[in-house]
Amino acid sequence: MVPITESGAMSAGGRRIDGPLLAKLIGASALKRPYYLAVGRAVRDLVLDGRIPTHTRLPAERDLAAALRVSRNTVSAAYTWLRENGYADSRPGAGSWTVLGPTGSGSRAPLTSSAEHIDLGAAAPSAIDGVRDASRSAVERLTAHVDGSGYAPYGLPELRHAIARRYVERGLPTTPEQILVTNGALQAVALLMELLLEPGERAMVESPTYPYALRAACRVGASPRAVAVPPGGWDMGAMADAFRRWRPGVAYLVPDFQNPTGALMDDEERRTVVAEAHRAGTSLIVDESVAELAIDAGDQPAPMAAHDRDGRVHTVGSAAKLFWGGLRIGWIRTTPPMVAKLATARQRTDLSSPVLEQLAVTHLLSDVLRIRTERSRQLRRGRDAMVAELRARLPDWRFASPSGGLVLWAAMPHPLATVLAQTAPRYGVHVAPGPVFGAEEPLEYYVRLSYTLAPEILADAVRRLAEAHTEAVARPAPAPGRLYV
Amino acid sequence: MVPITESGAMSAGGRRIDGPLLAKLIGASALKRPYYLAVGRAVRDLVLDGRIPTHTRLPAERDLAAALRVSRNTVSAAYTWLRENGYADSRPGAGSWTVLGPTGSGSRAPLTSSAEHIDLGAAAPSAIDGVRDASRSAVERLTAHVDGSGYAPYGLPELRHAIARRYVERGLPTTPEQILVTNGALQAVALLMELLLEPGERAMVESPTYPYALRAACRVGASPRAVAVPPGGWDMGAMADAFRRWRPGVAYLVPDFQNPTGALMDDEERRTVVAEAHRAGTSLIVDESVAELAIDAGDQPAPMAAHDRDGRVHTVGSAAKLFWGGLRIGWIRTTPPMVAKLATARQRTDLSSPVLEQLAVTHLLSDVLRIRTERSRQLRRGRDAMVAELRARLPDWRFASPSGGLVLWAAMPHPLATVLAQTAPRYGVHVAPGPVFGAEEPLEYYVRLSYTLAPEILADAVRRLAEAHTEAVARPAPAPGRLYV
Repeated sequence: MVPITESGAMSAGGRRIDGPLLAKLIGASALKRPYYLAVGRAVRDLVLDGRIPTHTRLPAERDLAAALRVSRNTVSAAYTWLRENGYADSRPGAGSWTVLGPTGSGSRAPLTSSAEHIDLGAAAPSAIDGVRDASRSAVERLTAHVDGSGYAPYGLPELRHAIARRYVERGLPTTPEQILVTNGALQAVALLMELLLEPGERAMVESPTYPYALRAACRVGASPRAVAVPPGGWDMGAMADAFRRWRPGVAYLVPDFQNPTGALMDDEERRTVVAEAHRAGTSLIVDESVAELAIDAGDQPAPMAAHDRDGRVHTVGSAAKLFWGGLRIGWIRTTPPMVAKLATARQRTDLSSPVLEQLAVTHLLSDVLRIRTERSRQLRRGRDAMVAELRARLPDWRFASPSGGLVLWAAMPHPLATVLAQTAPRYGVHVAPGPVFGAEEPLEYYVRLSYTLAPEILADAVRRLAEAHTEAVARPAPAPGRLYV
Repeated sequence: MVPITESGAMSAGGRRIDGPLLAKLIGASALKRPYYLAVGRAVRDLVLDGRIPTHTRLPAERDLAAALRVSRNTVSAAYTWLRENGYADSRPGAGSWTVLGPTGSGSRAPLTSSAEHIDLGAAAPSAIDGVRDASRSAVERLTAHVDGSGYAPYGLPELRHAIARRYVERGLPTTPEQILVTNGALQAVALLMELLLEPGERAMVESPTYPYALRAACRVGASPRAVAVPPGGWDMGAMADAFRRWRPGVAYLVPDFQNPTGALMDDEERRTVVAEAHRAGTSLIVDESVAELAIDAGDQPAPMAAHDRDGRVHTVGSAAKLFWGGLRIGWIRTTPPMVAKLATARQRTDLSSPVLEQLAVTHLLSDVLRIRTERSRQLRRGRDAMVAELRARLPDWRFASPSGGLVLWAAMPHPLATVLAQTAPRYGVHVAPGPVFGAEEPLEYYVRLSYTLAPEILADAVRRLAEAHTEAVARPAPAPGRLYV
């Protein structure tokens, strides 16, 4: 047992550990490179297996640096890594101390996940196998670009060409000049909102919906109006009614494996939506970030833009889900004049997308059919494992098994989403509570579960979730209204 | 001589060329890969050496595709490339025709430059030698990241560490948690403006200044106020007076090789600026995008933030000028709480920076002293060639030879900047006219010339510029007020 000093005076939790002792505990594991990461991971392991309790004050950076005989910068970087991964917290003047779970300052960043906690909250799969080869190929093809400025405000011609070709393969005639390359799908959505919406104008969104899109609409001063997507898919009557009554400037829709419900809009519904949008004078922002992620066999409807006759459908695509989120490449398919306007608007905040990643994505698109199959198989295994385990462990939860995409939207018997999301991390699992996806309603009965991890990890996660759910059910309900101020 | 048909009926310029003839002219040069690029370059060469006159209508895509026996997509991509590089233009229904100079739709994108024209307008050097090796090393280090989501909202820990270490080397104590990684310097500036300025608040900028920064201030509804930077550097009296009278929310300054004047602020001036900002309650956005690009030997003052006592100096850095613009990596050095706020604000439009480029920049920073020397030598040669040629060919132009950075700010004897910028492309050279950099004054006496190209190209460019200037001087002056509506 480690003699960690108890002291009420100094630290957040009263306990402290000094430099020489921590250096001894870190020991040989820190011979690896990069050194700061080895130190960070060693401390993480000590916290995780309980050899250093949480709320133990860590030594001052210079003390640990002296004990480990490394530079203070190295220790500083290790502490930063610990904070960002949720194993340490700090306050200016008070030093750093160990923590576990979402209280670390890393949790401020919604997409940072710790390695040992199972994160069902982020719908971000690991890289497909081809990413390294594509990156290698990109480096070789870099030679043709390094003599230039490196700026391509519309995107590299070869990538625009590859993206257009993929639309053609999917049955939608498209030329390269209809494509603008962006930094991920979110930049694409935000740019479209900026150009298509006036402050005060109505923006139709689905409810539940992708929260970043909702924020992008609010950011430009638009007034979001939510049309419900009930279990089982869109209510076309309600939707047509909403178009006619609201005459929104923009509607943001995810017809392919809707985020978070997983619903897939059929051909007839797509035709209806485009016709109603035309009638209401509404521009459509169609988010196809996960359109290539069908899991079950069967014909997928043509892209929504196939029904477009007057350039009102603006389609957003992304390399993040099909290939990898670490490649920050998305795109917009629209009319050539709109591409020019978007490129100009984009340059208010960002000059261009990175060349290396654009070349890597060009390479990956040349092998998209194989990659789709690989990703499908991986997601099918994940989804099936999660569905089976949910049915076994949480039989009173209701959900439709999604036919594509990365997430499952589950309804609980009690409105406990926020409480469950707060409880679950103590069981080592993170979920996204329904309210995150609500445009108007609180959605406290729902949680969104991502099945991008390996089947055995997902089964373990659902077991932990069931335990957390049992605890959440037993807890007294929060005072009404308290959670939504 | 090529039998290009004259016809008044169909095309923009009356001439046309058919598919089989163009295919024959393209000939063997289009055996190279990628094919669309070979086709595009072959057509460019035909336009440049006059074998196809400008305003000649190009064949329909399907006709050229049939004649070349390639897919229509390939021809479509070649035409897109021609348009983007300023060798073709098109109108829906009217087809495409050849052009030369800034009338092509590519000129809408300020950073797109054609290969044969000499572009003194863009301050964007080609990649330094190490970029390919750094990219290769990044691919190897990708292995440690591909199992994760690829998202790092604050930036990769190793890059934040490397950036912080570089500040330490430059004499400014900095920890990794003071660093937020962004997509280039412009995103950094735009984010800071967004967080530090309220609509209607005053934003102090230098005049002349970097136009994108001015736009970023306007974008958030701030009211820009310009303080003049006269030839020879800042007027500290005027500046102190401006701080006291305006009490701006933010001041945007480029103390290291000011853009566009090239001026370098000394230690005493930096101290004064920070003190005045403190007194006025102003936050400083200090753009150090080119701070590492000293050309002449001599001590460079410490970063402005070295004088900061209360976290009001927010420093912007960039990999674009020192390494390469194709790497879209910039950063902000500020306080850790501000880093957290900026990371949250950023996620309204963009989730993270690309992993591969972050790893490449980490690698490049480990070799920054060698790279600085390489870049310095290259820029010194360019500057000296440009200065010598300007003195020989345009002896009545006045300018200070800049001691660092990428650009030279020249005053002409007549207010002809706009006319010159319009005339110069017909001589195969592009310049950035003074008004582009003006916050309040038109600056028609000035042009900004970038010396990032090879000395012999720069000498050639100045010769062309001198000819264009002779023509511009001879032209009647534009009607007053016409150019600035």
